[in-house]
Amino acid sequence: MTTELMTGPRPDGLVPVPDLQATVLRDGYHRGTLRVTEVIAAVYDRIEARGDDAVWISMVPRPQAMARAAALDAMRDALFGPAGGGRAGADSRLPALFGLPFAVKDNIDVAGLATTAGCPGFAREPTSDAPAVAALLAAGAVCLGKTNLDQFATGLSGARSPYGTPVSPFDPEMIAGGSSSGSGVAVAAGLVTFAVGTDTAGSGRVPAALTNVVGIKPSRGLVSTRGLVPACRSLDCPSVFALSVADARLALSVMAGYDPADPYSRRLPGLAGPGWPTVSNSGRRPRVAMARPRELTFFGDAGARAVHEHGLSLLRELGVELVPVDLEPFLAAGRLLYEGPWLAERFASVGEFVLAHPDQVHPTVRAVIEPGAAITGVEVHRGLTRLRVLRRQAEALWQDVDALVLPTVPTSYPVAAVLADPIGLNSRLGRYTTFANLLDLAAVAVPVGFHGGLPHGATLLAPAGQDAFLADLAARLHACTGLPTGATGHPLAEATAPAPPTPLVPPTPLVPAGPGRDVVDLAVVGAHLSGLPLNGELTRLGAVLVRRDRTLPRYRLYALAGGPPRRPGLLRTTRGGSAIEVEVWRLSTQAAGRFLLGVGSPLAIGTVELVGGPTLGFLCESAAVEGAEDITDLGGWRPYLATASPSPSTVDVP
Amino acid sequence: MTTELMTGPRPDGLVPVPDLQATVLRDGYHRGTLRVTEVIAAVYDRIEARGDDAVWISMVPRPQAMARAAALDAMRDALFGPAGGGRAGADSRLPALFGLPFAVKDNIDVAGLATTAGCPGFAREPTSDAPAVAALLAAGAVCLGKTNLDQFATGLSGARSPYGTPVSPFDPEMIAGGSSSGSGVAVAAGLVTFAVGTDTAGSGRVPAALTNVVGIKPSRGLVSTRGLVPACRSLDCPSVFALSVADARLALSVMAGYDPADPYSRRLPGLAGPGWPTVSNSGRRPRVAMARPRELTFFGDAGARAVHEHGLSLLRELGVELVPVDLEPFLAAGRLLYEGPWLAERFASVGEFVLAHPDQVHPTVRAVIEPGAAITGVEVHRGLTRLRVLRRQAEALWQDVDALVLPTVPTSYPVAAVLADPIGLNSRLGRYTTFANLLDLAAVAVPVGFHGGLPHGATLLAPAGQDAFLADLAARLHACTGLPTGATGHPLAEATAPAPPTPLVPPTPLVPAGPGRDVVDLAVVGAHLSGLPLNGELTRLGAVLVRRDRTLPRYRLYALAGGPPRRPGLLRTTRGGSAIEVEVWRLSTQAAGRFLLGVGSPLAIGTVELVGGPTLGFLCESAAVEGAEDITDLGGWRPYLATASPSPSTVDVP
Repeated sequence: MTTELMTGPRPDGLVPVPDLQATVLRDGYHRGTLRVTEVIAAVYDRIEARGDDAVWISMVPRPQAMARAAALDAMRDALFGPAGGGRAGADSRLPALFGLPFAVKDNIDVAGLATTAGCPGFAREPTSDAPAVAALLAAGAVCLGKTNLDQFATGLSGARSPYGTPVSPFDPEMIAGGSSSGSGVAVAAGLVTFAVGTDTAGSGRVPAALTNVVGIKPSRGLVSTRGLVPACRSLDCPSVFALSVADARLALSVMAGYDPADPYSRRLPGLAGPGWPTVSNSGRRPRVAMARPRELTFFGDAGARAVHEHGLSLLRELGVELVPVDLEPFLAAGRLLYEGPWLAERFASVGEFVLAHPDQVHPTVRAVIEPGAAITGVEVHRGLTRLRVLRRQAEALWQDVDALVLPTVPTSYPVAAVLADPIGLNSRLGRYTTFANLLDLAAVAVPVGFHGGLPHGATLLAPAGQDAFLADLAARLHACTGLPTGATGHPLAEATAPAPPTPLVPPTPLVPAGPGRDVVDLAVVGAHLSGLPLNGELTRLGAVLVRRDRTLPRYRLYALAGGPPRRPGLLRTTRGGSAIEVEVWRLSTQAAGRFLLGVGSPLAIGTVELVGGPTLGFLCESAAVEGAEDITDLGGWRPYLATASPSPSTVDVP
Repeated sequence: MTTELMTGPRPDGLVPVPDLQATVLRDGYHRGTLRVTEVIAAVYDRIEARGDDAVWISMVPRPQAMARAAALDAMRDALFGPAGGGRAGADSRLPALFGLPFAVKDNIDVAGLATTAGCPGFAREPTSDAPAVAALLAAGAVCLGKTNLDQFATGLSGARSPYGTPVSPFDPEMIAGGSSSGSGVAVAAGLVTFAVGTDTAGSGRVPAALTNVVGIKPSRGLVSTRGLVPACRSLDCPSVFALSVADARLALSVMAGYDPADPYSRRLPGLAGPGWPTVSNSGRRPRVAMARPRELTFFGDAGARAVHEHGLSLLRELGVELVPVDLEPFLAAGRLLYEGPWLAERFASVGEFVLAHPDQVHPTVRAVIEPGAAITGVEVHRGLTRLRVLRRQAEALWQDVDALVLPTVPTSYPVAAVLADPIGLNSRLGRYTTFANLLDLAAVAVPVGFHGGLPHGATLLAPAGQDAFLADLAARLHACTGLPTGATGHPLAEATAPAPPTPLVPPTPLVPAGPGRDVVDLAVVGAHLSGLPLNGELTRLGAVLVRRDRTLPRYRLYALAGGPPRRPGLLRTTRGGSAIEVEVWRLSTQAAGRFLLGVGSPLAIGTVELVGGPTLGFLCESAAVEGAEDITDLGGWRPYLATASPSPSTVDVP
């Protein structure tokens, strides 16, 4: 029964490293070869065996986590029976994150555990979960505890915490990066499937690079920041660390959603947006900007440069066209964060506490935050204008490329070096990360390779809203590397994660803000029906099913030649038609425009007369039905599929 | 020849007041009954007769303006011949603003005239026009000079200028409002067809209310702010005063356009966006929010309240559903502007000059600007977060209503009263205007009525991007009032202004930012062709003509029954088709989704095979061509129209 769990390597000589990738666990849970209690017990064993690794600030007590695990096992058994189940699939009845252990950075509220933000004197005792955490728990994930961080998320090294410094799982002399230091190490060390972090200046990416894991920093506003101790409120962004892009994406798709109570929340397509471009929607290779080599410093780390160039060659092998660009607008935006106006925003978050309790604050963090009080309002307004100018410069770039690739960090440092020069080296660590939130970019950090025993990674960036595209591209790059995951020794699991579940809150309000112009209702009759191969073309665009309906008895339905997938054609007729089953899906006008791009010959979007009234929907050109099978009498496409012999249309189209 | 120009009333006993409304001048120019030289001479006569009215800070020398007028007359004669021409129409060959006199607020650059911003010591001598002014000149308008303003656009009374105080054209004891004081009076007094203003806190609306003219404050970012002396850079918004909504809209449609060199410029639908909702696109009455009466103070001005209630009753007569709402989020946002963080932005614009030249700055303006230096960066960041919270509250409102109606100003004051309490009364004047730019709203101020001999107006507001809808609604409200225009005594001209011309810069970049997903090319074959009745459905959505093309010889074309307008139907055939002329228009995906909503039975959007490759385009249901006239052999819809007897399809569809 414990086959999957126990075959892992033992790189640190402690207890075996379980393979906690979502696909692996999920498949085991489904097949009944793995129990949640067993997984949770194993990770607690492993955590206890590691002793004080400075990864955790507080833990969910083991009995409490085990009780939740047992409840999940019971739920599974009630669904499948103890011996039932089967392979996990898109139609699984288990919640999206069933039985997946996770950790939460200790600047985000989890009810029952203190939120310290890395400062014991600042601690608060939240009575409710942050909405993002609540969503993870509701989806069946199991929280193990709160992870260490640079105090007040102010730092990129992990060496600014009174709870100790989590170190690289590959070399205990080296930093693991920060500020989400504990979250990165918890994933890399095989203690959790994923860990929630935050990212203001790079805190969700730097630790990923230094621990050989994936860090997705989604678009600002995609995940609610309620329940988060702010660093810079306008820039803070919850993030996720995981062993694979698929796992991070899975967790984020649960956490994402518009939160009207968070003034920084935004309506964005999120992880379900349009992904990797294909010939059908662009007809060209993705173009990815890269820095000109002379603009790219690694602060003397030739190994880091070599690994980065390897990453670029992998992108080329993937068919990406690399375009050298000027990095200066990005670097200039990054300097704004640490050298000026946004320090005042950091002070606005915790400055009064810092001034009132100087002895409770890390000296380096004090040195960063205290000067924020002296920044004038005039400087802030001028900084905001300067940032707009830089954004405009960056926008010109996005007209020409789909993404930007950079090293996640230029190099890494021993803990001792960081302690000796805490501000100078921190600034170096953030060289390729600090600008992202200022310029409103989404980012995915992935491992690329090792040099001298230490990992190096690359980050892909694109304008907010391109999360899905970035995740697709990053997943391909990661898969190309052939690297084992984190420090677990386990290979990357096959990307067979379940389809992204329904987000926390419907991402787009379907009531239009203006006078009724912002939604399109579309009647679908064939492969776009719920559960059929092309339905994803609708759901990926945020469409929702409004109702099932039937046409007036004036139409004929044909099974068209071609496929897969097989498609029907609906034709209005002046004589002898029938009522045909349809579904009415609602899209935003923008989504409808995008959907239109995928409507292929001989289909067309026109007016379909339904029992519920005329609506736009799929019709078929009459020229295409000559010789096609007339299936009008079946009354719809589903009855036809049920009667037809097994055909390609029932196979999932990638 | 001077009929139109000389029949105006003489309300101020000076020279006759010409009717300078665009429709009137344009029609006269076309028919040849009016010459530009004659109009420009008349307005100079009138300006000279008024003497020092404090409206102007500098004038274009009369001979220079007359030379430009003569050049325009010569252009017209070259087109039509001295005796030629005819009624103005949508197909006019004259530029959009041909021969229209206008004024520019003296905080916007006009080459050859100093830009003082109301402060002689601050004056600069621009060598080029602000882009918005350049666009007006390029469209044939005639600039007369620069108008007075509250110094540095800081004020709403018009009584903060060393160049004197422009007074109400209805009572010389009363203020005319500010800061665009001279621009408002120039229009009301019949000196120009329109005047450019700016609006940060209400400067483009308050003078409109107090002079019985229209003031459009468009969405921020719709008009370039380059060449403008900033007040609050993030909030400044060029605006237009005119005697009618149609005239202000006409000027703005020329000024509007994305300016990549202005970091605050935005891509917005502008005046050509979707307008007044109809049954066909919403199926319901427009809903307009109004303040609950107890929340609506007029500072004791019962006449102002009575006029406002009259305005509300006019809206109801127009079929508007009025919805009482809580005004507090709006008022709270307004307080942010004058009581806190944004004063630092005002200081960022001109603060150093004010400190260095205290004797050159108006004492009240100094008293407003100087404290901005003391505002901290922390206060600004907190203000930005507070504003986001208020925006979120306002957004909830916009889910439910299409617009908000408020009095433009609660009341008005004598000049003497304002001088006695310059800051307190200014704050009252801005009560219903200051929040608009902070909450990212567009606004149109229109006259509603008179009480005690003084005008009162209302402002309609809606989220940025709804400019066209607001303008439609405001034009209808203004027309309902039956008021004469400004102080001219002339009635509102019939709304037969020419169609909005091509904007300064194409409003939407048609190169997609992402991987090729953001535009839709659409082949049109009938009434949507350039110049035909439904073409406006495309251009109003920002569509641009990409190319003319022909189908492969596989289609038949039919003249469908019904109309107006007459429409053709294109049907792919398996035998005996021809090549049919089409135009390919390009839309954003969002615009395509909106366009789709208007595609009526029996037409549909499918794939059309063109010589240039397959593209989406109009097709027709086969069921609809039974009995229709087959016009395939003509090769296109235009040849059919040319051969057909005069039919409703050549008449403009409103």
